[in-house]
Amino acid sequence: MSAADAEAGQGAAAQPVVILVRPQLGENVGTAARAMLNFGLTELRLVQPACGWPNIKAVQACSGATVVLNHLTVFPSVAAATQDLSRVLATTARGRDIGKPILTASAGARALRAALAEGGRAGLLFGPERTGLTNDDLLFADAVLTVPLNPAFSSLNLAQAVLLVAHAWFQESAAQPAELRPAPADPHRQPATKGELQGLAEHLVAELDEVDFFKTADRRQSLVQTIKLLLQRASLDGSDVHLLRGIIKALAGKDRPAALRTARRG
Amino acid sequence: MSAADAEAGQGAAAQPVVILVRPQLGENVGTAARAMLNFGLTELRLVQPACGWPNIKAVQACSGATVVLNHLTVFPSVAAATQDLSRVLATTARGRDIGKPILTASAGARALRAALAEGGRAGLLFGPERTGLTNDDLLFADAVLTVPLNPAFSSLNLAQAVLLVAHAWFQESAAQPAELRPAPADPHRQPATKGELQGLAEHLVAELDEVDFFKTADRRQSLVQTIKLLLQRASLDGSDVHLLRGIIKALAGKDRPAALRTARRG
Repeated sequence: MSAADAEAGQGAAAQPVVILVRPQLGENVGTAARAMLNFGLTELRLVQPACGWPNIKAVQACSGATVVLNHLTVFPSVAAATQDLSRVLATTARGRDIGKPILTASAGARALRAALAEGGRAGLLFGPERTGLTNDDLLFADAVLTVPLNPAFSSLNLAQAVLLVAHAWFQESAAQPAELRPAPADPHRQPATKGELQGLAEHLVAELDEVDFFKTADRRQSLVQTIKLLLQRASLDGSDVHLLRGIIKALAGKDRPAALRTARRG
Repeated sequence: MSAADAEAGQGAAAQPVVILVRPQLGENVGTAARAMLNFGLTELRLVQPACGWPNIKAVQACSGATVVLNHLTVFPSVAAATQDLSRVLATTARGRDIGKPILTASAGARALRAALAEGGRAGLLFGPERTGLTNDDLLFADAVLTVPLNPAFSSLNLAQAVLLVAHAWFQESAAQPAELRPAPADPHRQPATKGELQGLAEHLVAELDEVDFFKTADRRQSLVQTIKLLLQRASLDGSDVHLLRGIIKALAGKDRPAALRTARRG
């Protein structure tokens, strides 16, 4: 049990990682850390913090939630920050229509709990204060999580968004006794991590580039997004990814001697 | 219907009054107003505001929730501010033992709704930032409302306390389905038929046979089953199947002239 776990009062219980994408203000990183710790969440990641890191205003605004700030990690991209996670939920002000399931905070908390019960790691993505997450950021999410608000006034501060989502997580934890947690269907089936899925998508796209599958840049952009969404949705585990990469390699002829492949490059 | 009601998007629905007792910082009055309006609450009362009123910092911090600040009223005592209310709930950081019922925010929201349904008016008391409500303040409350927090870190900002309680009120008002939009939500996204999935699997296996991917009959049997299960589980629609068949064809070189493919058959 780490110091952070101890202060969180939750023992070593598995919990989701909070990921702030391109946060603009140090204050908001501090108040978000405070909101996390109010509900026992301690692992914070920043992606390309516009406010810079370390940041003294964050420390001043965290009201003593230093255990969260002291352990936070900074990543260069959403891809890197989600690489080890098997389940990622993205928060948006309005459930944006990008063909992913849209969950309430409570349903999202249950989905995270289920992912953690299967032995994977899980995370929550929050976008920059003014603009929110981009569609490219949302590619890394399995589902979108939204908190219904007064439609006439739905501007929510970053820390308040974190607070409401962390509260839903805390409520679901308290409401669900351990014995009701869903048992993993197959203990050997671990959901693929975002890093594995990203690697698979890149491998496939590289091979498709080589045979000029996409023809035009526009078509490439739209099809690459379709392929990534498809792989995200496909409930793949680690061994599925391994099998699919083997299949791509075999179909592309990359497991045969170079001499036999020459004709295809023409 | 008042202008405030209209902006709250709730019509003239009865709602509880929020009462901030001796607030110290104008910013917190502003952010509390914002949190109220996020969940459709518009009637705010201040008791002996230490920050003074009117207060420019409140206006700067309210992020446009001016409809709440413009209509707020200031009272000299908790007694005066609760005079016209038939049901009052007091919020405390920890449910303090003063011989009153202690409710969760959800149960409190239901109690308020019941009081409003009987034609009375209802209110929520919040104490000063540092000290909270005194036992004298609590005399005016019918029950105490508390939000369970991480016991090791229960310091909650005033606006965040208002946010969580207002959220519980909003949730109780609107019974929402947990999954706001189950996937696939897109009416154009029809799940692939079993025939389409079967065709895709056969196409893939035929191409894999051609490059001797499976090596042995045993391995072939087991891997073909794995592939079929994987495709079954992958939530594919008709256009996904079409895309995947295009990808297989392209990788296998079947979309190029036969002469260029000769070497691969060796």
